[in-house]
Amino acid sequence: MSIKIGIAGYGNLGRGVEAAVTNAPDMELVGIFTRRDPATVKTATGAKVYKWEDAKSMKDDIDVMILCGDSANDLPEQTPEMSQYFCCIDSFDTHANIPTHFAKVDEVCKKAGTLSMISVGWDPGMFSLNRIYSQAILPNGNDYTFWGKGVSQGHSDAIRRIEGVADARQYTVPVQSALDKVRAGENPELTTREKHTRECFVVAKEGADKAKIENEIKTMPNYFADYDTTVTFISQEELDRDHKGIPHGGMVFRTGVTGLNGEEKHVIEYKLTLESNPGFTSSVLTAYARAAYRMHNEGTVGCKTVFDVAPTYLHPDTADEQRAHLL
Amino acid sequence: MSIKIGIAGYGNLGRGVEAAVTNAPDMELVGIFTRRDPATVKTATGAKVYKWEDAKSMKDDIDVMILCGDSANDLPEQTPEMSQYFCCIDSFDTHANIPTHFAKVDEVCKKAGTLSMISVGWDPGMFSLNRIYSQAILPNGNDYTFWGKGVSQGHSDAIRRIEGVADARQYTVPVQSALDKVRAGENPELTTREKHTRECFVVAKEGADKAKIENEIKTMPNYFADYDTTVTFISQEELDRDHKGIPHGGMVFRTGVTGLNGEEKHVIEYKLTLESNPGFTSSVLTAYARAAYRMHNEGTVGCKTVFDVAPTYLHPDTADEQRAHLL
Repeated sequence: MSIKIGIAGYGNLGRGVEAAVTNAPDMELVGIFTRRDPATVKTATGAKVYKWEDAKSMKDDIDVMILCGDSANDLPEQTPEMSQYFCCIDSFDTHANIPTHFAKVDEVCKKAGTLSMISVGWDPGMFSLNRIYSQAILPNGNDYTFWGKGVSQGHSDAIRRIEGVADARQYTVPVQSALDKVRAGENPELTTREKHTRECFVVAKEGADKAKIENEIKTMPNYFADYDTTVTFISQEELDRDHKGIPHGGMVFRTGVTGLNGEEKHVIEYKLTLESNPGFTSSVLTAYARAAYRMHNEGTVGCKTVFDVAPTYLHPDTADEQRAHLL
Repeated sequence: MSIKIGIAGYGNLGRGVEAAVTNAPDMELVGIFTRRDPATVKTATGAKVYKWEDAKSMKDDIDVMILCGDSANDLPEQTPEMSQYFCCIDSFDTHANIPTHFAKVDEVCKKAGTLSMISVGWDPGMFSLNRIYSQAILPNGNDYTFWGKGVSQGHSDAIRRIEGVADARQYTVPVQSALDKVRAGENPELTTREKHTRECFVVAKEGADKAKIENEIKTMPNYFADYDTTVTFISQEELDRDHKGIPHGGMVFRTGVTGLNGEEKHVIEYKLTLESNPGFTSSVLTAYARAAYRMHNEGTVGCKTVFDVAPTYLHPDTADEQRAHLL
């Protein structure tokens, strides 16, 4: 019996989930739900497209709904809404607002008897898992998270909002010398500037003042002012040709000590090198949909995060097979 | 209320657990159980030492017993024995025999109402976790596990059994060019010889035939014959001075693809660099003792592995704190 999946929202993430579910041997894609006119949405696999409002009438046809909206505008409303009818998975990634989002979804789930998992992906998600495992194992130590090299959509958007900018792509790049110090177990104290640089590729509109654009980028508070930032002006053709992908990744480190007097040093490193940020994130969402289905079948309800999911639930093999082949 | 811990067996691993429990804010070390005469055992912290046979009479004084014996001779008997009275944690690492060991411990636990976790450590353990998470996320891909640079006790012991050898230390070393290919996502097919080399430091007895020893090492089936092996003869003083530590570590990789036609490549790497193998392993055992205590308090019984433990149980903070600070 396959797990019946719905996808709510059809952007980069939705397309990624469509591919992951299609390739999963134990899942079946029931349909994609959109706020646009379904007739205007062409899916990569020919999956059926439904109106958003039709979802609730399909309560019994779908085991898990994977939400593919954005964290700023969509998920704070959509996850509680859909959790009334379905077990849901979302990738809510506004770290500071996780407790509020959790409480809202938990209340709905407990009332409805559903199980929803929030903040699934790689950060929050796989990176969070590495933080909690590593802190639990090495309680006496330091955490470091580096991102990149990868595209930050938020920073790219911020540049595009500047007057005279036609298009832009921003890469977050970890500083090699900082990485080297952490890997060597030196436990450095690192400022924001010492951890990452920002590389901006910008297409200026005709006649725009490039010096002014560059200055506006480099001095932009929150986004760029605290970083060493480089700005390179290129043509739209170059941007489309050389900067089309959405690579990302990064590293989570824990450096800590064991021994009665902390005499033994250890370094734990978890590193992701991703050619496609939405492709990988949607694969994580899909694995957690399997876990949500299994845990809900066992009677678990409420809001959960990756911290609450035993790894056995994620993998399609039986527990016996997992112990025999993976342990 | 602190978690009351017992330690069964007092070698390198037992001393490591003693340190980890002593440094944990939510644990208390009740005592160490030994098959030797307790009067002959001097503990690093002054912890009390009891006769092995006294353990069962202390059933109500100990929440979790951490077993620190070896996988070949001790744990197959000791974990089932102790699981009659206690929730136990062991580091059983004979991969091929895990299903048998699991079944035996599971039967005892279910009869006694205890919860025991087997095969806890880093391989099996943290490496297994990375294998299961990464396979679940990237079902279409390849796994690679590399060990080292680190001391293999089993290989060191095998050399010591050769006639004319006074002492020896063997390091397992991953081959850099193989690592580079895996990290680049080339998905190489690697033979045993292509993945690791073996470096042996040997102290020969006076008058021993060094050429014969070297040849015996390099042609030893299972241990060395399938590897490029180097043998370096040194003095006992050099061995004691330069090869005293027990470093280890290694890497688990998953390279895989996402996208409808596998068009996006990803690399997941988990890397441990450990100054002390028993120091780190005992820290993992101690974190899982916390999880066993909490899960047993919720009514869970039977044999478990790291695959069955949701990460939230490992970390001393509350679930609210974990979500706020680690997610």
